[in-house]
Amino acid sequence: MFASLRCTCTLQANTVHWLTVVRSHEQVRVSRSISSSPEPGAEWSSNGGLRGAHGAATSLRLPSSTAILTSGGGGRRRRRWGAAAAASRVSTCSAAGRGTVVIGLAADSGCGKSTFMRRLTSVLGGEAVAPRGGNPDSNTLISDAATVVCLDDYHSLDRTGRKEKGVTALHPRANDFDLMYRQVKAIKEGRAVEKPIYNHATGLLDRPELITPPKILVLEGLHPMYDERVRGLLDFSIYLDVSNEVKFAWKIQRDMAERGHSLESIKASIEARKPDFDAYIDPQKQHADAVIEVLPTRLIPDDDDDDDDEGKVQRVKLIMKEGVKHFAPAYLFDEGSTISWIPCGRKLSCSYPGIKFAYFPDTYFGREVSVLEMDGKFDKLDEVIYVESHLRNLSTKYYREVTQQMLKHADFPGSNNGTGLFQTIVGLKIRDLYEQIVADRAASPALAAVA
Amino acid sequence: MFASLRCTCTLQANTVHWLTVVRSHEQVRVSRSISSSPEPGAEWSSNGGLRGAHGAATSLRLPSSTAILTSGGGGRRRRRWGAAAAASRVSTCSAAGRGTVVIGLAADSGCGKSTFMRRLTSVLGGEAVAPRGGNPDSNTLISDAATVVCLDDYHSLDRTGRKEKGVTALHPRANDFDLMYRQVKAIKEGRAVEKPIYNHATGLLDRPELITPPKILVLEGLHPMYDERVRGLLDFSIYLDVSNEVKFAWKIQRDMAERGHSLESIKASIEARKPDFDAYIDPQKQHADAVIEVLPTRLIPDDDDDDDDEGKVQRVKLIMKEGVKHFAPAYLFDEGSTISWIPCGRKLSCSYPGIKFAYFPDTYFGREVSVLEMDGKFDKLDEVIYVESHLRNLSTKYYREVTQQMLKHADFPGSNNGTGLFQTIVGLKIRDLYEQIVADRAASPALAAVA
Repeated sequence: MFASLRCTCTLQANTVHWLTVVRSHEQVRVSRSISSSPEPGAEWSSNGGLRGAHGAATSLRLPSSTAILTSGGGGRRRRRWGAAAAASRVSTCSAAGRGTVVIGLAADSGCGKSTFMRRLTSVLGGEAVAPRGGNPDSNTLISDAATVVCLDDYHSLDRTGRKEKGVTALHPRANDFDLMYRQVKAIKEGRAVEKPIYNHATGLLDRPELITPPKILVLEGLHPMYDERVRGLLDFSIYLDVSNEVKFAWKIQRDMAERGHSLESIKASIEARKPDFDAYIDPQKQHADAVIEVLPTRLIPDDDDDDDDEGKVQRVKLIMKEGVKHFAPAYLFDEGSTISWIPCGRKLSCSYPGIKFAYFPDTYFGREVSVLEMDGKFDKLDEVIYVESHLRNLSTKYYREVTQQMLKHADFPGSNNGTGLFQTIVGLKIRDLYEQIVADRAASPALAAVA
Repeated sequence: MFASLRCTCTLQANTVHWLTVVRSHEQVRVSRSISSSPEPGAEWSSNGGLRGAHGAATSLRLPSSTAILTSGGGGRRRRRWGAAAAASRVSTCSAAGRGTVVIGLAADSGCGKSTFMRRLTSVLGGEAVAPRGGNPDSNTLISDAATVVCLDDYHSLDRTGRKEKGVTALHPRANDFDLMYRQVKAIKEGRAVEKPIYNHATGLLDRPELITPPKILVLEGLHPMYDERVRGLLDFSIYLDVSNEVKFAWKIQRDMAERGHSLESIKASIEARKPDFDAYIDPQKQHADAVIEVLPTRLIPDDDDDDDDEGKVQRVKLIMKEGVKHFAPAYLFDEGSTISWIPCGRKLSCSYPGIKFAYFPDTYFGREVSVLEMDGKFDKLDEVIYVESHLRNLSTKYYREVTQQMLKHADFPGSNNGTGLFQTIVGLKIRDLYEQIVADRAASPALAAVA
């Protein structure tokens, strides 16, 4: 997927595999130097990404230049390590000597972070999978180009600890920002780390897992932009801003319909989180380079009887900061102007309540931004191509790439509306940003050494 | 200006000049066959149009195939012939054997017909001038490609006659539709006519002038689409629909500021015309292929103190009928959709109250139409290129043609707003329509014979 990359991947049990891959636009050359027995599961994936089979019991030898920064967490963390007895170690492809590009994705729980991550890793190349052979409750996702780390792993208090102290997981006191900073910095500098695991099933802190520097490290969770030091390490940051109305509708959908929770308990849970959410999570959006905002539709009048439709239709805004290095905001028709566009008409027929796009310049927390907005939903995913062909600066590599991505993941939530569309576009933008940074570093080796 | 045309032009005193011109995209070949002494004033104009010097006293010999249909008006017409003692005869370039393309332009007086005509003839090639050497009060305009006839010339009653009968010039009874039909039909069939002249200075009917078949005949006036038979002869029709508010502001501007009329007399004149206008002029717009509608701006709130601005800013709509042969409506960004566009922003800065465009499908008197709308005015004519580059289907022949036309006639009323812009676009559309008709006839000689 990338114009030029050098990928060094460490794999499994007592074996170090070196795969050196140099890709030009059209050619792929793969040279392997295997120190002992070959890794049977290692394969070159069909879409050009590198896929390593992560064995069941891993005892990993890293390249000599790779140091490991272990978690220096307190006693409670260690005491509460759960069921995964063996130290879980995962490895991933790293852009050796190029430095890891770090992306932050902030959102409340239940706002679609994991769907976004699946879209992002798909755009970056290859499937995102849980670390094979590690802790089955690991929150980490590995794909060919990216490692996605869930920041819940940096909880300094487990579930019992939070109850004892009377703080929610959203409170900074429940999170270890010092460790988060040190480990992200280490990865960015090319060093592997032993990252803790927060076990969502047990509410305990499990034994750490090894994270080696990937090409792209995505930090997804509640606080990627909360701590100034961590924020300073981010090459790009995104905030998923789901309005209370929509969040409530989604929670009902998920927790009531799928998990059998009562409406009251869902309301109570949202209310309980709200003060900390407003104090510590929401303010991060002012630092984001891109915000995906999900709001109730404006296409259906308030007095419309059919409330069902209203819950199913969203107005989604992609708010893109201007002047961010390596990030050129996407636009509709004419850059920098103000446009509203109802594509439904003679060429595209839409069912009620239709589709409406907008594009306009705005300010967001005092910063100049460009906003793309989509209200409504696609009747058929084929219609995405109609929209895609009128959007500019999408950073696609081929015709219909956005549409193809949407079709590929048609079963993901939001595939028929602006959340899926804008998540896909942000994914393309991150790929583009990564490639620009790599190209910059290749052009200035001094920069690469620093990064 | 035209991709392919065959132009036969009859010129001056006792001489017939034949200029046969066959133009391909790049080449111009001119062959002259002169029967006696050459016409010193005849020249090939720089822009490729044919310009004939119309001598002072014309006694014209037409090609043998050209018959002359004289006006068969009644006694009053003949009795009231005014000062122009000699029979005025004008001639113009004709597309021999190809048939004349006939365009109708309807509007009330004071609605910008003459400005539109100057824009149109400029787009068609060459300057539009009064017939040289004819009646100095002739209403006809001659340009290289087009002859513009004012339908006031078909008044059956002169000013005194109208007073005697108590009818306005807008009433069908004051106009000779039989003659209008016969003469337009004759021209369309390739025959010259002796068209009456209504003298606006004296209010009398002057001696007829000769009109030979031009490539394009434009019928401008109050009633080009009133009579069903005349309407049936039109290849394309336009209605200039100026709202009462704007019409009133324009009349004040012209009749009060420039002609010293009182506000009361202007109001009275408008009121007096209104019943006949509503009964006989306004309904023609339902037959028009294109309507240019001029409305008060919506950019300035009603309660804005600065009324001056409001008078100077208009919202102009170009309503284009769908499904008209040889006429593909212009559009903004995406054909068939609904768009609003404020070009003012990061790339284009506009002074108050800015500029707003719209494009949308609509119905107009039960017919499907596409509408382009411009509210506001250009601060600088350079800005037109910014707009032009986002409009599609303009039928321009080269980059910036719309902008160049607007700049060329910057002193014309409406050059800084939608009236000038849409008049220019309609001009381009008429040129395109003409070329398509000529091409069709060239491809089907049988059609040409009928036309």
